[in-house]
Amino acid sequence: MKTSSRSVVDPFIVMDVMEAARMAEENGRHIIHMEVGQPGTPAPLVARQALTDAMQDQAMGYTVALGLPALREKIAGLYKRWYDVTIDPARVVVTAGSSGAFVLAFTTLFDTGARVGLGEPGYPSYKQILSALDLMPVGLQTSAENRLQPVADDLVDQNLQGLICASPANPSGTMLDKPALKTLIKACHDKDISFISDEIYHGIQYEGRAVSALEISDDVYVVNSFSKYFSMTGWRVGWMIVPPDHVRTIERLAQNMFICASHASQIVALAAMDSIEELEENLLVYSTNRQLMLDGLPKAGFNSFAPPDGAFYIYADVSSLTNDSRAFAAEILEKAGVAVTPGLDFDSKRGATTLRFSYARATTDIVEGLKRLQAFMDTRG
Amino acid sequence: MKTSSRSVVDPFIVMDVMEAARMAEENGRHIIHMEVGQPGTPAPLVARQALTDAMQDQAMGYTVALGLPALREKIAGLYKRWYDVTIDPARVVVTAGSSGAFVLAFTTLFDTGARVGLGEPGYPSYKQILSALDLMPVGLQTSAENRLQPVADDLVDQNLQGLICASPANPSGTMLDKPALKTLIKACHDKDISFISDEIYHGIQYEGRAVSALEISDDVYVVNSFSKYFSMTGWRVGWMIVPPDHVRTIERLAQNMFICASHASQIVALAAMDSIEELEENLLVYSTNRQLMLDGLPKAGFNSFAPPDGAFYIYADVSSLTNDSRAFAAEILEKAGVAVTPGLDFDSKRGATTLRFSYARATTDIVEGLKRLQAFMDTRG
Repeated sequence: MKTSSRSVVDPFIVMDVMEAARMAEENGRHIIHMEVGQPGTPAPLVARQALTDAMQDQAMGYTVALGLPALREKIAGLYKRWYDVTIDPARVVVTAGSSGAFVLAFTTLFDTGARVGLGEPGYPSYKQILSALDLMPVGLQTSAENRLQPVADDLVDQNLQGLICASPANPSGTMLDKPALKTLIKACHDKDISFISDEIYHGIQYEGRAVSALEISDDVYVVNSFSKYFSMTGWRVGWMIVPPDHVRTIERLAQNMFICASHASQIVALAAMDSIEELEENLLVYSTNRQLMLDGLPKAGFNSFAPPDGAFYIYADVSSLTNDSRAFAAEILEKAGVAVTPGLDFDSKRGATTLRFSYARATTDIVEGLKRLQAFMDTRG
Repeated sequence: MKTSSRSVVDPFIVMDVMEAARMAEENGRHIIHMEVGQPGTPAPLVARQALTDAMQDQAMGYTVALGLPALREKIAGLYKRWYDVTIDPARVVVTAGSSGAFVLAFTTLFDTGARVGLGEPGYPSYKQILSALDLMPVGLQTSAENRLQPVADDLVDQNLQGLICASPANPSGTMLDKPALKTLIKACHDKDISFISDEIYHGIQYEGRAVSALEISDDVYVVNSFSKYFSMTGWRVGWMIVPPDHVRTIERLAQNMFICASHASQIVALAAMDSIEELEENLLVYSTNRQLMLDGLPKAGFNSFAPPDGAFYIYADVSSLTNDSRAFAAEILEKAGVAVTPGLDFDSKRGATTLRFSYARATTDIVEGLKRLQAFMDTRG
């Protein structure tokens, strides 16, 4: 049997880093993990307790495809709480993580060959999922002046059918403010470009609050997840808010492609939404870590980056230090015992001169990691 | 925003039945559920306990894309236990249910427009997932003489790139024996047709044991799941066994399209594989139910069906009673208080004259359901 052309997607470079880090640990070395894109914390305690209780007396078979009604209701309520926006729970689609949401969104919106834009640097899976669905990812090179976010001018002459935008962004952590997001959405509407807003890092923000595309228009897809703010990566549960007239189509697709998101994960997610105190404690850790990074990285010699408004990454331009980020990351792992992500996964053009540092883990790790980075750079000279 | 052409998939007719049943229950009626395709039992007790324990001391972040190594190892071992076949754990891909496995399999094997055959009647989502991926489902009308399974002759002049086969099948419960499966796989190999064996009902069998395609060839995709025999539908965890040289491609696709199957579900699945006693008790219930159905359905007047070798369905030809299975199912629900599935979901051509009865629920329900069906048919005359 042969594999298809559509199945040939790029490897994650970070996987090599992670494998090298794992092997170093197997050989007894202590590694600080600044490569991982997930919290070190578990799902909130009361949420895990809710699942333990539910497992006593429920069979937990399939849920309906769009998700537990109580969860959809509660997610709709979050838009009131976070953005003062009223969302009909009927527009909420519970998905198998944001990954499942992207598969459903792209399938619902685009036919084979459609050109879908995304800012570079950006989350690498957008491109790969698009390719796997035989759609055409169109990388839009963003600029430092625009804080690595796409702007209306980037859409000119691209003949796009869709645009994916993330704010706060991965890897840069930068956000689009309301006027910028409004201008971008308007430009998309004017050109009949379907707008998909990846809001997975909402809730993890430090300066001001992230703006939802739903504050500007209902004619957008908003993708979010319980992975980051709600600290539930491994549970694989997320959601989308979609235009009312798209719900029925997505429901049918979801019934067939997923049946439903994990019932257990939906139960945990529902309870997690009430665990505000624990989640805000996690946020406080990120906030402390961020400040340590903003102080420590420049001291170590990594001084070219936009301060992140949200998420838990710093994306540094290291062009003055290397033109081979993969080799540089390997050197940092080898010599400093710190795992970091080379920029190649996020930006095929300029990623050879960038690194992503994650500060999602415990503060003690961040302190130790920065100490090691500084010592490494001092030695490197 | 507009929806795509590929996203227009057929509705599940059974959903109307389920909604009507739900409304009847809301109005105080008692309904027997013979429409549902899932066990009424939860995941095994020790498996649920294993998750409760794991939630105490693990953050349960992402797993690697192919699944927990211990789970892949144990799944490989199942092939030794069930079929005396040795499978390298490296060939095991843990997926988000069999749904996730089909999405990965179809994406890995087929490019846009590829023609993929499937026996009718069959599991409706094959077609819909194929359509959503812009592949061309080709329904092969099976015959009662072939016990509603596709045979080599059905492949002639169809210009197929793939064939999906299920044994035991949904909705018929019939199995392909080893010579039949061997002939079919050989015919596919001769014609360069990728063979996908859906073995989701393996373990739930009554006469002889189900044969795995892996007993015949390594050059096949085998899809299975923890949903049915392991009684874990809502957990959304399944697996594939694939040819060794396809693993790396699938791993990359899975990293991007799914990241991983639910970590919690993988922990439950791992422990469920040791719960043989509880699972065999479930099986005993299905076996009892099946005998009740084989006796009771003909007495009630539903006497045209192939006795099911496995799964928990009986697929009856009701052409002597109706040529509108949807209306007939509605009548049975209305008058007898029994929810059954019209055949239209499984066979677009002949489904108007067939019904699927599920016996996955408790024996008391089956006894009561059969009583009601008999009374209904007696009145109907």
